[in-house]
Amino acid sequence: MLTIYGVYRSRASRTIWMAKELGLDYRHVPVIQAYRLPDPAAADAPLNTRSPAFLAVNPNGRIPAIEEDGLVLHESLAINLYLAKRHGGPLGPAGAAEDGLMTMWSFWAMTEAEPHTLEVLYHRVANPQGPCDPARAEAAVAALRAPFAVLDAALAATGFLVGGRFTVADLNLAEVIRYAGAAPELFEAAPRVQAWLAACQARPACRAMMAEREREA
Amino acid sequence: MLTIYGVYRSRASRTIWMAKELGLDYRHVPVIQAYRLPDPAAADAPLNTRSPAFLAVNPNGRIPAIEEDGLVLHESLAINLYLAKRHGGPLGPAGAAEDGLMTMWSFWAMTEAEPHTLEVLYHRVANPQGPCDPARAEAAVAALRAPFAVLDAALAATGFLVGGRFTVADLNLAEVIRYAGAAPELFEAAPRVQAWLAACQARPACRAMMAEREREA
Repeated sequence: MLTIYGVYRSRASRTIWMAKELGLDYRHVPVIQAYRLPDPAAADAPLNTRSPAFLAVNPNGRIPAIEEDGLVLHESLAINLYLAKRHGGPLGPAGAAEDGLMTMWSFWAMTEAEPHTLEVLYHRVANPQGPCDPARAEAAVAALRAPFAVLDAALAATGFLVGGRFTVADLNLAEVIRYAGAAPELFEAAPRVQAWLAACQARPACRAMMAEREREA
Repeated sequence: MLTIYGVYRSRASRTIWMAKELGLDYRHVPVIQAYRLPDPAAADAPLNTRSPAFLAVNPNGRIPAIEEDGLVLHESLAINLYLAKRHGGPLGPAGAAEDGLMTMWSFWAMTEAEPHTLEVLYHRVANPQGPCDPARAEAAVAALRAPFAVLDAALAATGFLVGGRFTVADLNLAEVIRYAGAAPELFEAAPRVQAWLAACQARPACRAMMAEREREA
């Protein structure tokens, strides 16, 4: 049985989406980010990323984390690559070359995209740790123009990143690109990215995750 | 035949070290970072990350990149995970759980460590794009104390990250942690990290890479 630690409004959404794609039974433990609480150490505080009980699972104090058959993993995109491979099927790689490409796109999501897409989210929509700064949002949009062009070109052949089908690479990257939704100018300049993200988010597993996310307090 | 693109004084060092660990024949194409050249577009400029010939290999304009049997990959840590799996042996995973852990530690290197270890390098040793800023180095050292403690604890059981042996996870992380060498206070507080890094760097494949790196102009 798989356990997923982390509230929906966190990178745990990626892992919950993946679990639903794979049709896995799982237990969901809604650990919340400590920075969202006035006093994470209070006796009546909910289980959070600084709670000793959660630090025993992930000493980094980050969500998501998972536990399955005694294996504990953190790092959301690594978790999804593991789940796709462990549970088989077309979401995971057929062979070492596809494995390499799915892993490459997942790293690309973290190095080229997420630092900037999070800046768009925090500084055009809502910053959980301070005021929005429009200048930082503008800088992030400027930094994302080249990665969006690379992604747009990569989608030209089949509309997907690897193997001509929806895989863990698309899921991992779609969740990172979603954070840039408040920068429509990026998507207007990259129409294949726009169509690909819409197709990813139209999948029943993504819709089911997002519906549960909307119900989260 | 494997081709590795990228000068030694770049993240390509990781890939060259891995190729030597695996005993692979490879062709080395010393693509240099464009920001190290006064005019990367000059007719007599060496092959660099903004050269059209290299952008045809990696449209992101980043090194390293590899080509093997028609497969082109970028993202250094993904390349090393691919090579370790593709060429087999104890550096790669035995099964899905080890694969998950090796991938997790490689993502951890990029999310928790490298943004800060590079700041230590740039602001205590040499910044290729501007002056050193001691305050940024101090902030990076402060940010690294928690990840170093996590890493120190992870090494307690066997001295290695996964499976009680030296693997791609150790190699990937060792190259990222190396950038913090100018912050001895971090290593003094994490003696297992210090011993582990020394053991990784004492390997013949690492020494061979570093010797070639020293000879690079």
